Amino acid sequence: MNRIEALAAVVREEGCDALLLTGEVNLIYVTKATALEGQCLIFPDGRAVFVTDGRYIENAEQQLIPLGFEVITRPQTTSLYEFLQTLLRENGIQKLMYEDDVLTVDEFAVMRELLGISFQPVRKKVRSLRANKSEEEIACIIRAQRIAETALERLLPELHTGITEREAAARLNYYMALGGSEKPSFDTILLFGENTSKPHGVPGDRALQEGDFILADFGAVYQGYHSDMTRTVAYKSATDEMRKVYETVLAAQAAAQAAARENMLCSDMHNAAAEVIAAAGYGQYFTHALGHSVGLEIHESPVASPRCNTPLTRGIVMTDEPGIYMAGKFGVRIEDMLVITDDAPRNLTLFPKEFTVLGG
Amino acid sequence: MNRIEALAAVVREEGCDALLLTGEVNLIYVTKATALEGQCLIFPDGRAVFVTDGRYIENAEQQLIPLGFEVITRPQTTSLYEFLQTLLRENGIQKLMYEDDVLTVDEFAVMRELLGISFQPVRKKVRSLRANKSEEEIACIIRAQRIAETALERLLPELHTGITEREAAARLNYYMALGGSEKPSFDTILLFGENTSKPHGVPGDRALQEGDFILADFGAVYQGYHSDMTRTVAYKSATDEMRKVYETVLAAQAAAQAAARENMLCSDMHNAAAEVIAAAGYGQYFTHALGHSVGLEIHESPVASPRCNTPLTRGIVMTDEPGIYMAGKFGVRIEDMLVITDDAPRNLTLFPKEFTVLGG
Repeated sequence: MNRIEALAAVVREEGCDALLLTGEVNLIYVTKATALEGQCLIFPDGRAVFVTDGRYIENAEQQLIPLGFEVITRPQTTSLYEFLQTLLRENGIQKLMYEDDVLTVDEFAVMRELLGISFQPVRKKVRSLRANKSEEEIACIIRAQRIAETALERLLPELHTGITEREAAARLNYYMALGGSEKPSFDTILLFGENTSKPHGVPGDRALQEGDFILADFGAVYQGYHSDMTRTVAYKSATDEMRKVYETVLAAQAAAQAAARENMLCSDMHNAAAEVIAAAGYGQYFTHALGHSVGLEIHESPVASPRCNTPLTRGIVMTDEPGIYMAGKFGVRIEDMLVITDDAPRNLTLFPKEFTVLGG
Repeated sequence: MNRIEALAAVVREEGCDALLLTGEVNLIYVTKATALEGQCLIFPDGRAVFVTDGRYIENAEQQLIPLGFEVITRPQTTSLYEFLQTLLRENGIQKLMYEDDVLTVDEFAVMRELLGISFQPVRKKVRSLRANKSEEEIACIIRAQRIAETALERLLPELHTGITEREAAARLNYYMALGGSEKPSFDTILLFGENTSKPHGVPGDRALQEGDFILADFGAVYQGYHSDMTRTVAYKSATDEMRKVYETVLAAQAAAQAAARENMLCSDMHNAAAEVIAAAGYGQYFTHALGHSVGLEIHESPVASPRCNTPLTRGIVMTDEPGIYMAGKFGVRIEDMLVITDDAPRNLTLFPKEFTVLGG
């Protein structure tokens, strides 16, 4: 079933006259186009109308008309809601589904007042469609992941004593862009030494020195789909404690991967990793959720957190990223992306993860 | 007046017990820290409490305690709303101001149900504080702008026949990152030849060739503050039509700059440029608003559009970016950032903009 038809089915099930999509990510989902802005109306009969403006008209017509969309251009002298009001009236729309998980409270208040029809919240039904990835979507995530892996392969041998976190991160992003990434999947985390204990630290002026851990948490974007990986490697030398913590995180990651499966609760996936870390005596240093879903957004639902009691379902792409963070000392995180199946999950990450001492 | 105190004054004026900030940008505004996630409560007496979690605790304590914040860590086993409920009860909060321009409809519905107190929308009062920039904020925007200009200076001489838009954009982003940009201000637009007619085109595989226009619309971010500039230059040769269109856009930009001033309507600033373009016979090819405010977000309010009847006020940083877009042929856009004053605006952009033929 194509995506327009899946959305039209939601409109029919809910007894609405149309679904209005305005969120950037939902628009990429329905149009498969990443470079457009606008609004989309999906009708119960599968008609799809895309409203754009002068900045995007060329791209919109080129990309969407072949997919069966009607493309309408709003003149810049007409406000969005004036334009929508006419469009809704012409199409006899009395009850409109809207993205209550995208529109802000004040945006919805304005829309409700100006359009003067009745509304029904979409209640995450579009997000639910997006949670379980098709093979086509997984192929995009894999492509993004390969771009990220190739960039890290190129970067690691270039790292040298004295290079700063900021420059290393800049190079990693550059190599991903050259490899075809549309943008970094999120702000690249690339940290050295004691900074690795900050799970979401920001690359700065810290210079690389012997005995540091190097932690890189980053991803690429391909056709709107995100990748996410973390690798932690030692530079030139490592202590026994660094090695022990690393092996603990690696074992925790493997335990979660071995356990993850359709119908398992997300919290149990987290717990499978957390138990390994706790048993090794590092429980207090694993301070975040094990993972999150990935797709057109870097953080999607469900999440593998101790508080998420949603069951895993087939086609969810979930990160598996335990960590141990010892403030003032170092941190280790290892992250792969797993596709949930009815059997062992499929690991989309190929980059090696045995304990590594660079240039050692 | 410092920012916490300005927000506390809003809470007092509105007769509320506290203001809850959860939006990333508002949090940067109040904390002056760019690498934190969390929530902030501002009390009428100027007390400020920052709630964070294990991922950010090190940074939060280092950066916020010296500024007078109380920093509280939420354990990962406690949901945000459970935690907030306790915090609000302990502080006797019955009426809470919330960001109706940040929270989505469904997020607010959950919050309202779980917290069980009364709420008042902030009605853009935080945005209004953010619209008029202090000298400290303008200094950050200038720093970001200089990073962007230095990157373009480095890139232009490297452009050669056959380089793709994608590679040129990747280099520009890389040079900005090396110069200290936290990230690109938005997805860099770097286009060649016929692609320059797409105002928001995406860099792709188009290779540079003699006779092309090169259009670069991009910016850097420094301490959370964005810059935004556009330059259009010809490569090796140019037609009379390219030159004429360029000079028209440049004259339109100058007209808007000459007119822009405190108390002028935003729409009149747009019109000052639009009239020059229309008089030259290109009116139908100027298809977007003249400008937008810039600050902690790349697109802020007010905007210099034909439909915005807000008056300009001192300290607004507004882009002045007219364009002429001839589909299938080429487009020209020239963009500077202006600070509105009670006299001629201050232009933050230093990069040259006379008609230029690169390597010609």
